[in-house]
Amino acid sequence: MTHFGDQLAYRIKELKNPSVVGLDPRLDKIPNYIKEEAIKKFDKTPQAVAEAIWMFNQGLIDAIYDIVPAVKPQVAFYECYGHYGLEVYERTIAYAHKMGMLVIGDVKRSDIGSTAEAYAEGHLGLVDVFGTPTPTINADAVTVNPYLGSDGINPFAKVCKDQGRGIFVLVRTSNESADEIQGQAVGDELLDEVVANLVEGWGRDLIGESGFSSVGAVVGATYPEEARELRLRMPNQLFLVPGYGAQGGGAEDAKPCFHSNGTGAIVNSSRGIIFAYLDDKISERAYAEAARAAALRMKDDLNRLF
Amino acid sequence: MTHFGDQLAYRIKELKNPSVVGLDPRLDKIPNYIKEEAIKKFDKTPQAVAEAIWMFNQGLIDAIYDIVPAVKPQVAFYECYGHYGLEVYERTIAYAHKMGMLVIGDVKRSDIGSTAEAYAEGHLGLVDVFGTPTPTINADAVTVNPYLGSDGINPFAKVCKDQGRGIFVLVRTSNESADEIQGQAVGDELLDEVVANLVEGWGRDLIGESGFSSVGAVVGATYPEEARELRLRMPNQLFLVPGYGAQGGGAEDAKPCFHSNGTGAIVNSSRGIIFAYLDDKISERAYAEAARAAALRMKDDLNRLF
Repeated sequence: MTHFGDQLAYRIKELKNPSVVGLDPRLDKIPNYIKEEAIKKFDKTPQAVAEAIWMFNQGLIDAIYDIVPAVKPQVAFYECYGHYGLEVYERTIAYAHKMGMLVIGDVKRSDIGSTAEAYAEGHLGLVDVFGTPTPTINADAVTVNPYLGSDGINPFAKVCKDQGRGIFVLVRTSNESADEIQGQAVGDELLDEVVANLVEGWGRDLIGESGFSSVGAVVGATYPEEARELRLRMPNQLFLVPGYGAQGGGAEDAKPCFHSNGTGAIVNSSRGIIFAYLDDKISERAYAEAARAAALRMKDDLNRLF
Repeated sequence: MTHFGDQLAYRIKELKNPSVVGLDPRLDKIPNYIKEEAIKKFDKTPQAVAEAIWMFNQGLIDAIYDIVPAVKPQVAFYECYGHYGLEVYERTIAYAHKMGMLVIGDVKRSDIGSTAEAYAEGHLGLVDVFGTPTPTINADAVTVNPYLGSDGINPFAKVCKDQGRGIFVLVRTSNESADEIQGQAVGDELLDEVVANLVEGWGRDLIGESGFSSVGAVVGATYPEEARELRLRMPNQLFLVPGYGAQGGGAEDAKPCFHSNGTGAIVNSSRGIIFAYLDDKISERAYAEAARAAALRMKDDLNRLF
């Protein structure tokens, strides 16, 4: 049986790279030659958009699979194209697996009881197909939202335990308005600290040999002081860290998300990697090479921290 | 331009029925004759599961479209079957529209910035297909999660304004562990009351002629005292009320979610309606008639309140 916390911790160590690349495709930024090829196949349809995303992703994965431990597709950019988009989300996950990468589905799902169970089984586990348990979406881990409390998390934790999968619970997001709810004072604590205490408890049964749990936490790089406090409260959680790069956080801001020995966090960059060819004003045909170069720069940037 | 708050408020009045039927299909409870027909077409595949769900839903909509204002498909029970499931989710929405029903997609999405925009455009609005704004999933309203604050809501509110659509923000969910986060004391208020104040503000620009905003709130029937407080704080919000029936709340528990004149709330029942044939031990071939009878009983139950 695999253990997601161990898998991710070991792969980070092996590649000496605590980063994850966000596969957040935007049609207007995908190279034109890819879009033209997709239109040739399917005309100007949602199916052609999905095909363009697929070709774009395949090039990215081919360019980074040997240097980056995991990809994090943001499902919103797929499901906005309906079932065509979701099909490419599934195909992207399967391809990343084939190339040896871990996949964190950024789905931020939340619901209760049998509904949360359906999400967990669909995204991470096996669903019932006329008596045969069958994988469908098949990510290694997903992000989840804690607003509904334990009832919303337990069904995911069960699938994590039974199938060796993982979750990252939103604790402190990287956006400006995060404070409106997450920063509310609850007695002597902030609400995100109350959530951190819950996450620590939810993950206790799922700690692996690496010392890390398969229940991790999302902690943004844009609140470094709060991250320091959250790191103390969740010693066994892997932190998935958004906000590096395009959202304004640098490597230094992400530092408090790590333990002092440099373990315990994986920093995400999406636009800064996958659309690096636009920032670097490189030919669109070299978008994948530009992504690899940007991923290597990010790796060095993070390794300089410890 | 349509206005979701008005559309729903007027349709409830027209049908004298403040209820919504949750289309939450579970394969093990779908009548066998439907499953057999689906297997004949597509063997024992995820596609056959999706087809069975589609046939089941079609029968339900045919049975209730003239007595119930809206359906609320729970997307988890569709997307767990991957893109096959999402395609049937889309087909179900289109069919409900054809039969004159409003559709509230129970998706509980949450994210920020361009990601929330993608969710909003995909589920409620128009997405870019090579320069042509195109509808894909096309629900009238969706449920959203507030944990990320205004950054997560504003992109949805914009689509509501531009396209005449609606959202229901989770304020107080109906589950037991809701208190772990939503019930935390923030100064003199509970956290869900802080969220209620935010929802009132988010909805202020979207109040229609009916007096109701297109930004509504999810308030469970299982916390009647808290619902009373939330009703006062959100006078212009339509409340979407889960927890009636299978989750243990009765019509009396839902009463504080309404204004004293009987407007302002729509109560959901899922299992109690769509699988009524199991409770009532009726032949599976009469599942749709059983659903209609249960929907009428619920309507009477709610109308007795005022």
